Amino acid sequence: MHGKFSEWNDTIVAIATPPGIGAIGVIRLSGNRSFEIINKLFPSKDLSTQPANTIHVGFVKDGDKVIDEVVISIFRSPSSYTGEDVIEISCHGSPYIQQKIINALIHYGARLAKAGEFTQRAFLNGKLDLTQAEAVADLIASNTTASQNAALKNMRGGFSIILKEMRERLIQFSALIELELDFSEEDVEFADRKKFLELLNEVSDTVKKLLQSFQLGNVIKNGVSVAIVGSPNAGKSTLLNTLLNENRAIVSEIAGTTRDTIEEIININGILFRLIDTAGIREHSQDIIENMGVLKSKEKIQLADIVLYLFDVNESNEDEIISDIKKQNNNVIAVANKIDCSDEKSLQHFKERFRESIFISAKMNTGIELLKEKLFNIVAGNSELSENIVLTNVRHYNALKEVQASLDDIKNGIENKISGDLLSSDIRRCLHYIGEITGEISNEDMLDYIFSKFCIGK
Amino acid sequence: MHGKFSEWNDTIVAIATPPGIGAIGVIRLSGNRSFEIINKLFPSKDLSTQPANTIHVGFVKDGDKVIDEVVISIFRSPSSYTGEDVIEISCHGSPYIQQKIINALIHYGARLAKAGEFTQRAFLNGKLDLTQAEAVADLIASNTTASQNAALKNMRGGFSIILKEMRERLIQFSALIELELDFSEEDVEFADRKKFLELLNEVSDTVKKLLQSFQLGNVIKNGVSVAIVGSPNAGKSTLLNTLLNENRAIVSEIAGTTRDTIEEIININGILFRLIDTAGIREHSQDIIENMGVLKSKEKIQLADIVLYLFDVNESNEDEIISDIKKQNNNVIAVANKIDCSDEKSLQHFKERFRESIFISAKMNTGIELLKEKLFNIVAGNSELSENIVLTNVRHYNALKEVQASLDDIKNGIENKISGDLLSSDIRRCLHYIGEITGEISNEDMLDYIFSKFCIGK
Repeated sequence: MHGKFSEWNDTIVAIATPPGIGAIGVIRLSGNRSFEIINKLFPSKDLSTQPANTIHVGFVKDGDKVIDEVVISIFRSPSSYTGEDVIEISCHGSPYIQQKIINALIHYGARLAKAGEFTQRAFLNGKLDLTQAEAVADLIASNTTASQNAALKNMRGGFSIILKEMRERLIQFSALIELELDFSEEDVEFADRKKFLELLNEVSDTVKKLLQSFQLGNVIKNGVSVAIVGSPNAGKSTLLNTLLNENRAIVSEIAGTTRDTIEEIININGILFRLIDTAGIREHSQDIIENMGVLKSKEKIQLADIVLYLFDVNESNEDEIISDIKKQNNNVIAVANKIDCSDEKSLQHFKERFRESIFISAKMNTGIELLKEKLFNIVAGNSELSENIVLTNVRHYNALKEVQASLDDIKNGIENKISGDLLSSDIRRCLHYIGEITGEISNEDMLDYIFSKFCIGK
Repeated sequence: MHGKFSEWNDTIVAIATPPGIGAIGVIRLSGNRSFEIINKLFPSKDLSTQPANTIHVGFVKDGDKVIDEVVISIFRSPSSYTGEDVIEISCHGSPYIQQKIINALIHYGARLAKAGEFTQRAFLNGKLDLTQAEAVADLIASNTTASQNAALKNMRGGFSIILKEMRERLIQFSALIELELDFSEEDVEFADRKKFLELLNEVSDTVKKLLQSFQLGNVIKNGVSVAIVGSPNAGKSTLLNTLLNENRAIVSEIAGTTRDTIEEIININGILFRLIDTAGIREHSQDIIENMGVLKSKEKIQLADIVLYLFDVNESNEDEIISDIKKQNNNVIAVANKIDCSDEKSLQHFKERFRESIFISAKMNTGIELLKEKLFNIVAGNSELSENIVLTNVRHYNALKEVQASLDDIKNGIENKISGDLLSSDIRRCLHYIGEITGEISNEDMLDYIFSKFCIGK
């Protein structure tokens, strides 16, 4: 099924820590020759006789030449990450020294690992299924509580368990229907069609829920784009600062977030919102969107997940603009700013007029929590982020759509009393797509593609 | 003596691997509360009861919330890097997750380590002397065989051993001279002045050799700047390419080298040469250096460690230019290029005329090895790079110069038969500076300065 076993007698090596200079670097070696190869470089002790999960300090040498003083961790097959014998060498964090150790390991028979190849071996050795393996990459890339939780849940098999249970129950029916084919001349029905339909509906519901969770999953993984629109005097920059001030510390303290590439990011309850500042609406007019002049802004409004339209509550004619923008995007939040400049009475009037708006004072930090809650709820809806399994992977999404289509075909088939062999073929198609998600059914190209997106060393 | 013990009941934590996303990240915890703190995050097993040098896999949790699945390595006092109880947490290489684990460890009582603080504790706990500690930072920064070897040798105590032996022998004499002071009225000489002078000369020779090795040591650490000068038709870019072609692969494969910041780097026998291309000499004239027009080039020629003056051997009047450039820099290599364009007879003539030049054909790759040998020898002289202890640290250099000065004072004092107490004071000064190098004598400011140059996490 996996077709990788032939290449598989080799022992792979890679630097597992990020590139660059640090206090330490870790080199990872995995394969059936791991001990043989490390022993060539570590003369002070025969590591192959040492117990699993132990640590050994000593010099790594290439012949007579000391390369470095290192700490070696031993993991033994099958209780290692890859399922093979794994050696981890923790050396001084000089890229030069790491390269020298790698070169020596290659000289004695190891081969440079491809991206994701350690995890690929873990998968091929049955240590992880495919969704768990993919969750490892997601976990490494995670940068919010929500993305971390989703990845952790999948890494621990949450998603797979649901799929496997579905698959097993479908297989039972499938077997009965195949059996019917053997007795086709006798016209028997081993598979209870009514019960089968019940199962199909149940599975269909689960699949539908998972598919629906993908929008949230995608947002968890990639963040939500929020275009901030409004005339220059509406107080956009004050609002941006107010939103950012509390968050800046949290976001900027995390090295490696996308902060450098995207204008401004805020984290609301574990979801990243990317705030995109658009050109201000300079003049009011009949066709506001057109008059914004900047086609780019229009495009941003259309492409954004959410549009936040900010206006000075004390000015008029905003109703029209709001309805104009709402034609461009389904998720528009109208935000009435500068309530601190209104007296009680006019404010009451405004609140009746702009019923669906959120009333804030960016300057006085009033109503900001409500705005954040609104942003969060548009994305998360009523679902409890930390409880449910959320679909975050586009590959899983596409396969699940195929599953859903084949489930519909099976149901239609039963209702239309199509022949057993046609039904059986639809069920096999459905099982195929479920199996493809967890990796029970896989092909080399697909695996290579999936694992090529990993880091080297994982 | 060290004055750091008061702060020292705290347990420090830092990320030890380079910043950024990688397969794994390692977090290091050191101090007498390491086990107490890690146990708060690792509920599946009481790590404090586990033996030293063992590895444990499990989930790191903050309360009920899983943060990550990790591998924990246990090192116990005094057999750890710092001499304290050390825990290393190898987690998934997401900066976000690393930060979360660090935050949780801080929440339970750890404190963020300062740069070099782990190594500083190793020093204060007597695991390393100061030159060995400094060699750790050098080793991490090493990017050539020579710099790696020099750092490894110092880390293993090569330099300290010499100094400690010198110091002990001087202390013996010092003690005898102090004893004489107690019997000053009796006019005795316990310390044999002749033997003492012999020792002083011996120590002086060693110090002189070490001081002389600093030029090489500095070069090993920082590389050698080579300004390449010559008229545009002399074949500079061909020579650069010829020199680089063999080397490019080696240098560019090492991430983190200075390749990005400095034009071109070649590695000759483990020493880095930084090739600085200067503006070409466009026209021959009486006062060539002035006519190069570019003052910058002149400056580069004066500042460069070595000037490589390239000329087309088939053109004339180069003698004058060479002598002109030699006034600007002590290490000028004249290189006569394009010998492939000369016939045998003219070449013979040129070789007599430009006696001190190296004859090459950059195009045909002739004479390049000789040129590289010449470059290497200017730097390394006759010393065998891999054999001797080489002084690479400017702090050691400055202290050794003080040692040398005080040795001279002692010798003069003995010759001039100065009083025992004056002699004794000079000897103490000498011992002080030797002790300052190895850290037997240190003060807080000095230590803070030295360790602040380390990476965080080391």
